[in-house]
Amino acid sequence: MSREIALAARPEGLPRESDFELRESEDASPSDGEVLVRNVLVSVDPYMRGRMTGVRTYVAGYDVGDPIDGLALGRVVDSCDEQFAPGDWVVSRLGWCEQGVAAGKRLRKVDTALGPPSTALGVLGFPGFTAWIGLVEIGRVKPGETIYVSGAAGAVGSAAAQIARLKGLRVIGSAGTPEKVDWLRSLGVEAFDYHATRPRDALMDGIDAYFDNVGGEQLEAALSALRPNGRVIACGAISRYNDARAEPGPRNLFLMVTKRLRLEGFIIFDHYARFPEFLAEVAPWVRDGKLQYRETIVDGIENVPAAFAGLFRGENVGKMLVRVGPD
Amino acid sequence: MSREIALAARPEGLPRESDFELRESEDASPSDGEVLVRNVLVSVDPYMRGRMTGVRTYVAGYDVGDPIDGLALGRVVDSCDEQFAPGDWVVSRLGWCEQGVAAGKRLRKVDTALGPPSTALGVLGFPGFTAWIGLVEIGRVKPGETIYVSGAAGAVGSAAAQIARLKGLRVIGSAGTPEKVDWLRSLGVEAFDYHATRPRDALMDGIDAYFDNVGGEQLEAALSALRPNGRVIACGAISRYNDARAEPGPRNLFLMVTKRLRLEGFIIFDHYARFPEFLAEVAPWVRDGKLQYRETIVDGIENVPAAFAGLFRGENVGKMLVRVGPD
Repeated sequence: MSREIALAARPEGLPRESDFELRESEDASPSDGEVLVRNVLVSVDPYMRGRMTGVRTYVAGYDVGDPIDGLALGRVVDSCDEQFAPGDWVVSRLGWCEQGVAAGKRLRKVDTALGPPSTALGVLGFPGFTAWIGLVEIGRVKPGETIYVSGAAGAVGSAAAQIARLKGLRVIGSAGTPEKVDWLRSLGVEAFDYHATRPRDALMDGIDAYFDNVGGEQLEAALSALRPNGRVIACGAISRYNDARAEPGPRNLFLMVTKRLRLEGFIIFDHYARFPEFLAEVAPWVRDGKLQYRETIVDGIENVPAAFAGLFRGENVGKMLVRVGPD
Repeated sequence: MSREIALAARPEGLPRESDFELRESEDASPSDGEVLVRNVLVSVDPYMRGRMTGVRTYVAGYDVGDPIDGLALGRVVDSCDEQFAPGDWVVSRLGWCEQGVAAGKRLRKVDTALGPPSTALGVLGFPGFTAWIGLVEIGRVKPGETIYVSGAAGAVGSAAAQIARLKGLRVIGSAGTPEKVDWLRSLGVEAFDYHATRPRDALMDGIDAYFDNVGGEQLEAALSALRPNGRVIACGAISRYNDARAEPGPRNLFLMVTKRLRLEGFIIFDHYARFPEFLAEVAPWVRDGKLQYRETIVDGIENVPAAFAGLFRGENVGKMLVRVGPD
């Protein structure tokens, strides 16, 4: 017997506990090519909010009654795929559950020589990879440039800010608490608290690129601050995901023309072919302590909905994870 | 004695006659390397509206009292530059005046073998070049794709719509009068009148690229209609140039992320190195009648301000020009 979390109702605004249901799931055994995985840590990610509205975007939406699939880290219990053996650490898309069966070809084995297994959901997983692809492939950043990263203390933002530093950029970052700002400053980021300082004031010197995790007012300020040929790496818009209705966009979008700007969105799943290249560059930085990471770990599968909602209140520093089982 | 038009006041909203002054200009003689040019046709262009607000963008703004410089077609009267001889047709930046002196290196000699000289301000000049660069370099359009062109009966739009057709795309175009729609349909464009049909309804099949000359509501509709990996060629926003204050942007900008869209602005002056390549591809189409063009020619330098204001009321079909002297 194991437990899973399902969508009980479509959230309106900030997700509430009552939008989710903790229930027992059917135990299953792996068939040919499948693997039984016991989850250790499950990931809560801002993009999942969009899936709960029922609109299909780049991934299917969740319907009411559906279990919440998504990224999770676990250990192999039983395997009918010769690529995996009991005890292996794997990243799956099993989501918010204690255990489940997945096709072996949909699992990624974690190389524990690279770092603690939890990093496979954070700095050495999709959040770090998203930061790297955003900078390298979408933003095509160059040494000596100045980049602004919003949500810079989050899982993607903190990786983006530090990778940009390591690549020779000047980095300005925003975050929502003094603690986060202090951490970012210790990493060499020119950080400011957006509750105390307006983004437009923090960006007075001008920027060459903007790594947007937030949208809204910060995007408008960044468009004003961008220099000619500047780029917006459109990664996320966490300030908007809980809007009951679509709010208007930036008033200064025409600056895209007059300053020859480029704004480009991307979805990390399209770029998976470059994951090995990412690991080869970034894992040594993590191992050598040049790229730091933080995790906010909440305990117990019953607390997954609260942890998820906490993302939108900025309760995480670095990657938000929920522990649903022992290592 | 010759005449020129100067900025008398900064326009508020739609430019009025009283914002301009027709005055006599000082006659000048060319010094070494300079050329005296008598204007035949002067160009009125939407981008000039932005220069009248006094904000420096990619070109200097006009100050009150300044003569209005800009593109003009004329003939050489007297030359102290061996590259030019009396009678040569040249494109200059002398702007809204009957004659003036320019440095030879700032003039482009018109090859009258390519077409009537007036085309050097239209389909074989910057408007046509803007359309071509937008499609080839910014939008990177491919045969079989569908593109939407707003302002499709304008100087840039009509060239963009036809070049896209010649490159094997399906083309949807919007315009503001039945006459314009008829013309576009005769060119193989699926044209609609945006007063009668909402852009979102005209774009129900989906599009791969959007050539934006208009901004505002049409941009919002195009973002909704774009397929994954779609592109917005951000060329202009004529619907917004006379706004007293900046209006909000599209409500659906987050589609840039979920559909991995790219929105890129450009300024044609940055791309001048490719002008010969443009002429080599497009001039034969014009010569062979595969690419058609229209001109709306107003007579008399005193009517330049009215012609300019007419751009924003859609009074032009194709390129709007003002004749200020005989051929």
